[in-house]
Amino acid sequence: MKPVVGTLAIVGFGLIGSSVARAARKSGAARRIVACDASAAARRAIKRLRLADRVVASPAEAAAGADIVMVCTPMSAYARVARAVGPNLKPGAVLTDVGSVKRAAIEDLAPHVRKGAYLVPAHPIAGTENSGPESGFAELFTDRWCIVTPMARTPKAASAKVDALWKRMGSRIARMTPQHHDRVLAITSHVPHLIAYTIVNTASDLESTLRTEVIRYSASGFRDFTRVAASHPVMWRDIFLANKDAVLEMLGRLYEDIALMQKAIRHDEGDTLERLFTKARRIRRGVVAARQD
Amino acid sequence: MKPVVGTLAIVGFGLIGSSVARAARKSGAARRIVACDASAAARRAIKRLRLADRVVASPAEAAAGADIVMVCTPMSAYARVARAVGPNLKPGAVLTDVGSVKRAAIEDLAPHVRKGAYLVPAHPIAGTENSGPESGFAELFTDRWCIVTPMARTPKAASAKVDALWKRMGSRIARMTPQHHDRVLAITSHVPHLIAYTIVNTASDLESTLRTEVIRYSASGFRDFTRVAASHPVMWRDIFLANKDAVLEMLGRLYEDIALMQKAIRHDEGDTLERLFTKARRIRRGVVAARQD
Repeated sequence: MKPVVGTLAIVGFGLIGSSVARAARKSGAARRIVACDASAAARRAIKRLRLADRVVASPAEAAAGADIVMVCTPMSAYARVARAVGPNLKPGAVLTDVGSVKRAAIEDLAPHVRKGAYLVPAHPIAGTENSGPESGFAELFTDRWCIVTPMARTPKAASAKVDALWKRMGSRIARMTPQHHDRVLAITSHVPHLIAYTIVNTASDLESTLRTEVIRYSASGFRDFTRVAASHPVMWRDIFLANKDAVLEMLGRLYEDIALMQKAIRHDEGDTLERLFTKARRIRRGVVAARQD
Repeated sequence: MKPVVGTLAIVGFGLIGSSVARAARKSGAARRIVACDASAAARRAIKRLRLADRVVASPAEAAAGADIVMVCTPMSAYARVARAVGPNLKPGAVLTDVGSVKRAAIEDLAPHVRKGAYLVPAHPIAGTENSGPESGFAELFTDRWCIVTPMARTPKAASAKVDALWKRMGSRIARMTPQHHDRVLAITSHVPHLIAYTIVNTASDLESTLRTEVIRYSASGFRDFTRVAASHPVMWRDIFLANKDAVLEMLGRLYEDIALMQKAIRHDEGDTLERLFTKARRIRRGVVAARQD
């Protein structure tokens, strides 16, 4: 199959960046892959694993000559990366990203894109709790959704390129406004991660005898939370700061619902609990039916 | 290998009961297995799957002649089962259970055990989100902990029988007081399940456009919570009512920690968030190191 992009530059080579490189190569999506990472250790790993045709340290250098530049760094690095990449994009080139908060991504990236080049923000809904270039794999995006949030003024040809790249790597494409994306992700991803982090810390603050037992007996439910809470701390710090409003709104809703459960337990309201648990079980069936389990 | 028990009667044939039957047979732990379930559909499934040597509807009948009677019903049925089983235990027989709250189990079971028979409460830390006799499997307990909480007056020989049965089925044995068990499980299992149920319901109460998207994009963290929230509603209703004090205490601690996170997000305190997330990640490493992942 013909490549959908000539040169693909990937800036930030963690789990997602390195999985994109692997998937793009395996699917023949890109003719040439340029890898960029600020860390010398990461660059050595990229070379050792032969994940790219060229490995550079500077985002400006990665951008020069690329048809698509994909930013895969934590979101706190976006503005800095965009300042280096934006002016060096070639005419007609597309700047895209994989960040978990789309309004903040656009705020940081859009101002630096030179005239004649285009910004097409995107967000693949896929991941694991592991980090770093060694942790990626080519199948990470297979059958997973990629949400693309182009702006009204973006030419169709530019967003079509990003669509085609993700489709070739096995993803299904969805379109959303950045605002809507950020609310959906607040409840499906950001608040669940926040709670997982919190509950793991609550457990670790217990008296020390209890603490060892929490780990020993984690198969009883806790381990699912620790898995979620093993995700990249800097990436998640950036997500919560970037999606503050939607996260606080959804957290407020969650608080109200926890209070209902708490009250039902305190007053021995078994019927209320059973009704609420049965309802939650139905949602699980929806997830299984949508083949996202 | 010689069986560790002559006749093992299992009352309540859901995920755990049917897994015990499979594991006991596969490991040669019991010479004879008697299955008891109140549901005619479950009894038909037990016969079809050939999970027991004998299948009965009445707990009293199951108890007669058994060396160990294991109660595997939801906890709300304990008192009723014990009233039928207790007086029919043969001299020297052991009544045990698999319930998730040990103080409440003892309160419901102990008064009905006839003189000369013994109660040895236990709790295997293993499970899946599935229910019913079809969902069990023989390897469910392999390398998992089984917490045994005998009372001070229980003869060593009685608790040793329960230990030996679980060891043969692949478990590791831990001893605890019922009180301590209930606090450990409140934080490792009960509160995580409560939060998972709640967060899934919060999502399902969203505006309907958001709701379908929550399912579609569940790969971003939410699906782990829906898996936990798919567990048996009646079993969990009983657990929360039975372990009310410890659950409310641990939920109170969790509240304080969520408030800290919330405040850090509201005030853009990135350093605080990163520190809390890094700490949670270390706990995950402990879980992986303890091979409970």
